[in-house]
Amino acid sequence: MSSSYGQNLRLTLFGQSHSEAIGVTIEGIPAGERIDPARLQVFLDRRAPGRAAYATARREPDVPEFLCGLINGVSCGTPITAIIRNTNVRPADYAALVNKPRPGHADYTAHIKYGGAEDASGGGHFSGRLTAPLCIAGGICLQLLEREGISVISRIASLGGIADEGELRASTADKSFPTVSEAAGEQMKAAIAAAKAEGDSLGGVVECAVLGLPAGLGDPIFDGMENRIASVVFGIPAVKGLEFGAGFALSAMRGSEANDPFRVDNGRVVTETDHCGGILGGITNGMPLVFRAAFKPTPSIAREQRTVDLSTMENTTLRIEGRHDPCIVPRAVPVVEAAAAIAVYDALLQRRKELRT
Amino acid sequence: MSSSYGQNLRLTLFGQSHSEAIGVTIEGIPAGERIDPARLQVFLDRRAPGRAAYATARREPDVPEFLCGLINGVSCGTPITAIIRNTNVRPADYAALVNKPRPGHADYTAHIKYGGAEDASGGGHFSGRLTAPLCIAGGICLQLLEREGISVISRIASLGGIADEGELRASTADKSFPTVSEAAGEQMKAAIAAAKAEGDSLGGVVECAVLGLPAGLGDPIFDGMENRIASVVFGIPAVKGLEFGAGFALSAMRGSEANDPFRVDNGRVVTETDHCGGILGGITNGMPLVFRAAFKPTPSIAREQRTVDLSTMENTTLRIEGRHDPCIVPRAVPVVEAAAAIAVYDALLQRRKELRT
Amino acid sequence: MSSSYGQNLRLTLFGQSHSEAIGVTIEGIPAGERIDPARLQVFLDRRAPGRAAYATARREPDVPEFLCGLINGVSCGTPITAIIRNTNVRPADYAALVNKPRPGHADYTAHIKYGGAEDASGGGHFSGRLTAPLCIAGGICLQLLEREGISVISRIASLGGIADEGELRASTADKSFPTVSEAAGEQMKAAIAAAKAEGDSLGGVVECAVLGLPAGLGDPIFDGMENRIASVVFGIPAVKGLEFGAGFALSAMRGSEANDPFRVDNGRVVTETDHCGGILGGITNGMPLVFRAAFKPTPSIAREQRTVDLSTMENTTLRIEGRHDPCIVPRAVPVVEAAAAIAVYDALLQRRKELRT
Amino acid sequence: MSSSYGQNLRLTLFGQSHSEAIGVTIEGIPAGERIDPARLQVFLDRRAPGRAAYATARREPDVPEFLCGLINGVSCGTPITAIIRNTNVRPADYAALVNKPRPGHADYTAHIKYGGAEDASGGGHFSGRLTAPLCIAGGICLQLLEREGISVISRIASLGGIADEGELRASTADKSFPTVSEAAGEQMKAAIAAAKAEGDSLGGVVECAVLGLPAGLGDPIFDGMENRIASVVFGIPAVKGLEFGAGFALSAMRGSEANDPFRVDNGRVVTETDHCGGILGGITNGMPLVFRAAFKPTPSIAREQRTVDLSTMENTTLRIEGRHDPCIVPRAVPVVEAAAAIAVYDALLQRRKELRT
Repeated sequence: MSSSYGQNLRLTLFGQSHSEAIGVTIEGIPAGERIDPARLQVFLDRRAPGRAAYATARREPDVPEFLCGLINGVSCGTPITAIIRNTNVRPADYAALVNKPRPGHADYTAHIKYGGAEDASGGGHFSGRLTAPLCIAGGICLQLLEREGISVISRIASLGGIADEGELRASTADKSFPTVSEAAGEQMKAAIAAAKAEGDSLGGVVECAVLGLPAGLGDPIFDGMENRIASVVFGIPAVKGLEFGAGFALSAMRGSEANDPFRVDNGRVVTETDHCGGILGGITNGMPLVFRAAFKPTPSIAREQRTVDLSTMENTTLRIEGRHDPCIVPRAVPVVEAAAAIAVYDALLQRRKELRT
Repeated sequence: MSSSYGQNLRLTLFGQSHSEAIGVTIEGIPAGERIDPARLQVFLDRRAPGRAAYATARREPDVPEFLCGLINGVSCGTPITAIIRNTNVRPADYAALVNKPRPGHADYTAHIKYGGAEDASGGGHFSGRLTAPLCIAGGICLQLLEREGISVISRIASLGGIADEGELRASTADKSFPTVSEAAGEQMKAAIAAAKAEGDSLGGVVECAVLGLPAGLGDPIFDGMENRIASVVFGIPAVKGLEFGAGFALSAMRGSEANDPFRVDNGRVVTETDHCGGILGGITNGMPLVFRAAFKPTPSIAREQRTVDLSTMENTTLRIEGRHDPCIVPRAVPVVEAAAAIAVYDALLQRRKELRT
Repeated sequence: MSSSYGQNLRLTLFGQSHSEAIGVTIEGIPAGERIDPARLQVFLDRRAPGRAAYATARREPDVPEFLCGLINGVSCGTPITAIIRNTNVRPADYAALVNKPRPGHADYTAHIKYGGAEDASGGGHFSGRLTAPLCIAGGICLQLLEREGISVISRIASLGGIADEGELRASTADKSFPTVSEAAGEQMKAAIAAAKAEGDSLGGVVECAVLGLPAGLGDPIFDGMENRIASVVFGIPAVKGLEFGAGFALSAMRGSEANDPFRVDNGRVVTETDHCGGILGGITNGMPLVFRAAFKPTPSIAREQRTVDLSTMENTTLRIEGRHDPCIVPRAVPVVEAAAAIAVYDALLQRRKELRT
Repeated sequence: MSSSYGQNLRLTLFGQSHSEAIGVTIEGIPAGERIDPARLQVFLDRRAPGRAAYATARREPDVPEFLCGLINGVSCGTPITAIIRNTNVRPADYAALVNKPRPGHADYTAHIKYGGAEDASGGGHFSGRLTAPLCIAGGICLQLLEREGISVISRIASLGGIADEGELRASTADKSFPTVSEAAGEQMKAAIAAAKAEGDSLGGVVECAVLGLPAGLGDPIFDGMENRIASVVFGIPAVKGLEFGAGFALSAMRGSEANDPFRVDNGRVVTETDHCGGILGGITNGMPLVFRAAFKPTPSIAREQRTVDLSTMENTTLRIEGRHDPCIVPRAVPVVEAAAAIAVYDALLQRRKELRT
């Protein structure tokens, strides 16, 4: 089902931008796992809106209420459901947009799909707001993965065409702006401010690495790590591209250059390079699993745009008021980490079935 | 399960490079659909090896035998199973490679995953040979989609760094080399010949478009058309990147540039540009659905490569003999079409459930 | 996943007997369906505890709060989540039972499964209380089925060994006690009172019929209507048997007696008898779909019972205090209807995919 | 999908009674498991037709050909596909039946479902012949379960109304007729012969027990062991009832009688009785898992039966010629064991995910 993911871990996202609440149900978390709510909140706050000048002014605490599945903070083995109430609702902002689909948004396609019964307000179920419950699930998975020695790090690889510098080797979670190079980060922030001033928006690329993975995770053909990660990452609104390891650049390399030679290192098999992004045949090889997701610019811009009036079927224009991020990429960084953590933890549970005791 | 795909249409691939047979079981094809075996064979032949100087010398007819599910060429509603016998088996080629994983292949990761019980011969279940049954399923879907006015076209967008020229507007199926520009195709062929002469290999990018789609196909979040197509396309060996519409290039655009304005055209809603690749919020908008898949170079090259001996855990080298494509991209073109057709047909069946009669 | 059901309609139950809330998420309800909350509440009240002398004294309103998925009472096509707060929590009743598994309950098996992290209070996720969200989903499906001319009726076929009399031909929903024969119902009520007075409990059999079904619903082998209904009905706590049509009695008939002869009736194909319960080869034949579910007696009884102390691994006894139904069968009647409605509606959505327009 | 079962182990049945071949694909068998083909054949031969006077005269060897997934008899971790060619095809027997649905068979319902495109010959995909590939999968699971100390035994509990005597405590696999009491078995055989002589048929009940199960297998609500077993067992043609432990008889017991008291026995928790059939809350308690499946009489009988002519929509009669079992219950015994083994092995793989190493 479209709002559910996973075969071993299974999460179902529910809610709309302006419904009573949004939330997530997570099945398959083994019993006896302690979830640290404070650390989860720190993680969620990285995604939360309203923290910086470059983000939307809509400000909601996004503190999850756990309805079930935890006893004194420890998983009891049955479904975990957490919800976030939508307190800061402003549906009036969207009233003017009825029948005028916003370019770049799901308004038109949802209208066709749901035959006019869709929740058009704020993007409904298609809203980026649904990444909050995704991050609840992902934040829990990150804690569980850490117990297996696995960590997930990421950064903005580029934003508005400005590339970060240096290699992604450590978490950027503690930084005020998630780039490796502070100088590049300053340039990006300036670009966001400039775009905002012009009523425009920017996109970017988020790079993510999963470290500490055992070799042997993932499955052939349709359940390779690439497929598994793609299934979640393309669930993040605005993602239009995804590549693993050297990705598209691999298509211009020769085999002698692209192949990662194997080498024994301290009694362990490693590869000298990691062009394959830690995945061969869909299965982890024990090297860092690296991928990059391309985000299109925020479709909500303050400029006049050409659209149609669906009630009269005539051409018209619209201007989006409301509060919107001129660039969601900085806030998308933890969302990408959440997506990776979910896909990896599901694969880890899958792997356990194969290992006879 | 890893070798199965789809929720409404469901296909399961089975077999190894050198097992008795490879094949596919397809569940969910509605009863009463006539399958034209001659046209299916024409489609399969586009993928078959041994047709040209630039492809592997291994030559097998790849004529599917249908075991069940068709009565006089018409689907009877229950599972369709087709197999292809592996007649041209040369496992001796691979004997020398035991314990020496080939760089860029799944040998090492399969060895870890399956604990030494893997079928190492010719890549086993990870072999590109499994794209033959994928094409059987895809070829059937292409015939069914055609009845709904939907067609799938594709081309080599780049190969070895050489870009095709012009726009993808029509099928390249009848061409001897699937590019829009014949001149670019000639350059690509020359590059393949050069790489082969040097014992090396090339990768490339395949671009694919689905035309004639109704608006409203696909589902929110995890079952968007991007996720659905990614789940199949990353099941094709060697694919390491995937982008929709303008894809990665979108990440450097501004919103005012990236957003596709809506316009009424002959009483129908269209967009002036198609940067989103025909997908908004995971749902088709009725414009061409466009994506590009990046293939890494064939990992099997005729040069000496550094690897490890897993039995002694020492560094060593290997040289792959066997017969291999210096570039699988031309043969991958119909495979990408098959993948697209499968994902789209599954979404089409899903869509039917929503439409009350 | 264990708390989820369905392929086209998909519902996920969450919550424990004494967690903050219990609830259900329903995916796959087509957009544009109006849900009548008053009629839903009437249906839920048939299951609610505390209505009669023969039921548990625990009384909770069981009014669902819809968090999302409905706009002014109409489905918007994306997940519907409804919760019920657990207001009347009395965990102290269960404190004495820790380490002493109650016979006939899931205490021991949950303890082994979840390694001591289980929510033991009130049966946790295994509690009959989870049938409340099942009834929310089922009550919605009943409204949707009604629009297709399909209705679900049921009755207590036997209770404590006392059989109802007459045939199930009409709904018993409006009756104070759901039997066809009022005399039999009075006997059953007396039997419940007697068992209660003796600190004991009773079981029974619920018979259910689905009327107005089109022929052609259901699928071969593992997705026959029997399998589909069994998957939900065995999800109701205390169900230990299930039979369709003449069921176990069929095993003692001869083929000439068991086979239902076909006949043309007003231009429609019917069968003269309905020993097969309206299902042949897993597929509906257009006759009433009839099944019976056997419920074991409520395991919570007021008598001393033999059990073990898991902390000392010694034999011991326990006496259950708390409030419990001496017989849950009367309240189980709408639950069985809900189960039937869910299975049938899921099959109905499946059927739509096969029907080309 | 309807011809597939399982979440961890996944099997897909394909083929029709008279198609080129029937078969099964099994995904999820861990790598490195040796499958003994001779023992598998012994198991399959218990189901094979034509062995005794009381069975159909259609005789086919039913020797599976393994197309992939095994290397020298050892699983390599990727899908296992086995097929059985249909050599003894006699479609002419069925030609007269076109448009005249056989009472008790799926002819009519398949005709409606597939709109006339169904494979009517010999029941098509609905044929009991599909239990042969089910037994291939089940026979493999039985070998794997044996390595975990788990065995599956069964017997005919009743046939044509004649009850077996004694308790099911050991396998009946080596007996010429699978009952505990030989005298009861002789009576049953006589009843079959009598029914056959009268052109009639008989049904029966098969009882099955799974021994050696660990406590903790199975999952709450929709994935309890009851639901899991029901999903497979109702996939066996002619099964119309299923009960666990004391089953329907439980509905007439009191709680004080039905509850199985716990007791410590040699440091292990056991129950004094097994009315619950080894399952509490859907989860195994370590006692024998016991269930009974009710089979209706073979619908194919040699007598004239009333039916309709679908082409003219008029009442008519038919007489089935062909070769048919007057009672399929003896041959169904290993099929029920196969079903149990499949459901249990899938649950066992599921359980591994919960057990942290």
